[in-house]
Amino acid sequence: MRTQVGILGAGPAGLLLSHLLARAGIDSVVLEVRSREYVQHRVRAGVLEHPTVELLREVGLADRLDREGMPHEGVSLRFEGVDHRIDFIDLVGRGITVYGQQEVVKDLIAARLAAGGDLRFEVSDVALSGLADAPVISYTGPDGARHELRCDVVAGCDGFHGISRAAYRPEVFDREYPYAWLGILAKAAPTRHELAYASHDNGFALYSMRSPEITRLYLQVPPDTDVADWPDSRIWDELGTRLAADGFTLNEGPVLEKGVTGMRSFVAEPMRHGRLFLAGDAAHIVPPTGAKGMNLAIADVRVLAEALTAWFAGGGETGLDAYSDTCLRRVWRAEHFSWWMTSMLHNSPDGDPFTRRLQLSQLRYTVASRAAATSLAENYTGLPHGGGC
Amino acid sequence: MRTQVGILGAGPAGLLLSHLLARAGIDSVVLEVRSREYVQHRVRAGVLEHPTVELLREVGLADRLDREGMPHEGVSLRFEGVDHRIDFIDLVGRGITVYGQQEVVKDLIAARLAAGGDLRFEVSDVALSGLADAPVISYTGPDGARHELRCDVVAGCDGFHGISRAAYRPEVFDREYPYAWLGILAKAAPTRHELAYASHDNGFALYSMRSPEITRLYLQVPPDTDVADWPDSRIWDELGTRLAADGFTLNEGPVLEKGVTGMRSFVAEPMRHGRLFLAGDAAHIVPPTGAKGMNLAIADVRVLAEALTAWFAGGGETGLDAYSDTCLRRVWRAEHFSWWMTSMLHNSPDGDPFTRRLQLSQLRYTVASRAAATSLAENYTGLPHGGGC
Repeated sequence: MRTQVGILGAGPAGLLLSHLLARAGIDSVVLEVRSREYVQHRVRAGVLEHPTVELLREVGLADRLDREGMPHEGVSLRFEGVDHRIDFIDLVGRGITVYGQQEVVKDLIAARLAAGGDLRFEVSDVALSGLADAPVISYTGPDGARHELRCDVVAGCDGFHGISRAAYRPEVFDREYPYAWLGILAKAAPTRHELAYASHDNGFALYSMRSPEITRLYLQVPPDTDVADWPDSRIWDELGTRLAADGFTLNEGPVLEKGVTGMRSFVAEPMRHGRLFLAGDAAHIVPPTGAKGMNLAIADVRVLAEALTAWFAGGGETGLDAYSDTCLRRVWRAEHFSWWMTSMLHNSPDGDPFTRRLQLSQLRYTVASRAAATSLAENYTGLPHGGGC
Repeated sequence: MRTQVGILGAGPAGLLLSHLLARAGIDSVVLEVRSREYVQHRVRAGVLEHPTVELLREVGLADRLDREGMPHEGVSLRFEGVDHRIDFIDLVGRGITVYGQQEVVKDLIAARLAAGGDLRFEVSDVALSGLADAPVISYTGPDGARHELRCDVVAGCDGFHGISRAAYRPEVFDREYPYAWLGILAKAAPTRHELAYASHDNGFALYSMRSPEITRLYLQVPPDTDVADWPDSRIWDELGTRLAADGFTLNEGPVLEKGVTGMRSFVAEPMRHGRLFLAGDAAHIVPPTGAKGMNLAIADVRVLAEALTAWFAGGGETGLDAYSDTCLRRVWRAEHFSWWMTSMLHNSPDGDPFTRRLQLSQLRYTVASRAAATSLAENYTGLPHGGGC
């Protein structure tokens, strides 16, 4: 069996790439080790940058997003008991949209299937060969039979733990943070419309929402935290302490989900090896504080789809050769922004008081200076695709 | 002997305070352990912020500064072989003035002496007592005799190694950096008019100038560097490497001075103890990268002079009570900015490649984003006195 582009992974990167290629008349097959059910309910990021939303609209994927997504025109930085709003519209004329990654995935799968796209779930033992000039993806289907997929190009969109990156030896840039996020999903109506990032002497907290009935809340905790040590009452107490601000009420409610997420920065360079192109988490990871993960994946595949379209049309290798460098500019901008947000808002466990004073000075300045607030806003809402990094 | 304000230290802080108080009809005596000759030739900072220059003009101290000071309308960030100018005038409508600290000190001494001010150099064994309500400064004069100076208030402007801070137990915030600056003064005409801050894989370098004939240059070196290991030829080679940029020529010339300076951040809180008020380096140190040291000292004594003027006029303690908090806002802004410039431009000796990539992304962004460049420019040229921090 043959296709033009073999795509590993049915997350936002792989599915959107398949969609963009189909619009350009290029065949692809998407292989995914998980079930369709699983990927459609895998809860991940929920913030779409402005350029992400624009792209999804442009390629006909935003009908439900425009109906159900929640446009946010700002976020807050909360410290020393006061909530300071960063007004994105006033500062940079664009906002963000809160819409879960799993909703994007559902929309993408529905669109691909409606267009006759070839998505194969629950494959296993995926292996790559011939990456120099004649790639072959071999895998076991859900029927237990072994298959080979010959393709011109392989797109490795199979996430941080996928097999693509292991096919070569990229240079790796890595940082683990000495804290994690304890996240809960609670059946409690949000009391405010926008996200609030709180810096408190006890640690960071994030106030966010999934829907008009569901609040999503996070607490900075040590990386080795056992969820069992955090009964609901302790979580609500700590959220109450860290999120406290004049005029703010925290609605409590039944906790529907609870989990601990590690924080990591990771970049693999280059993002290309022969006919293999990495995109999204397969090539880079950001801590969640900057809300950049899915947005980076989408920016990557936009660049890749354009380069492949030119190449298949006989336009030469220029776009493919530039792919890694083009993506890495934006990746490092997002890595820096995510590191900056993370460092500004989390307490270092060694409790260095000089660092804490620097954080508070940075926070005060960010909300007092239009230039500093604009810098946060332009990064958070997303620098334009194809420039600005 | 009695005076209203006993001032320890004849640096920019102590001398300017004496001048500002005299303008308000308040008596002071300035005590200095060094000779007049020494303080007038002690080479320190050379960048005056815009609000510093405005203040010096306002209080009649800028005649020579306006004639001989070199107005700079921008600085450069240099990396990856390219020089990127940050245009202060375009970004924030104000610039800086390069004028050595020792020149400011000369002007201040001349002005105080012309006005009959009481400056006593070469005192020794200075001790403080009665700080709760009736301060006494005791000291040995150049004649060897012991003296007592009774005053209403003591201003501790005697620098980081002075005795004032030791009179109480402030909370101390401290950071030492794992690098130092090797600085030279060279008889070589500057080839460009403005400062250039260079980030290179070998380490930081700074291109600056003292006059149309004298270049002032710095190299990041390990903190335990022995100047003897850096013959002139090695210095010029390394400067050539780190400062290299398209279209840039480095003029070499005889090295007139050579020295290694440590890098430190330090803040003492509060800046007041009873009737003792600290100002300048006695209370806080910044690494030189942000060019903030003398400017902070001048901002401190402006606040102190205003508070003392109100107090002596019977206006109550409000200003004096607010002194420390008012200064510390600006101090922490400058501490953060200085730390930020230092961290962005110096190589960490552990050579962490992730950090280096973040630095380069930060540098690229700072020169590409108007918001980010404005943030640098407004901090570098100086946020307005009395607000903006």
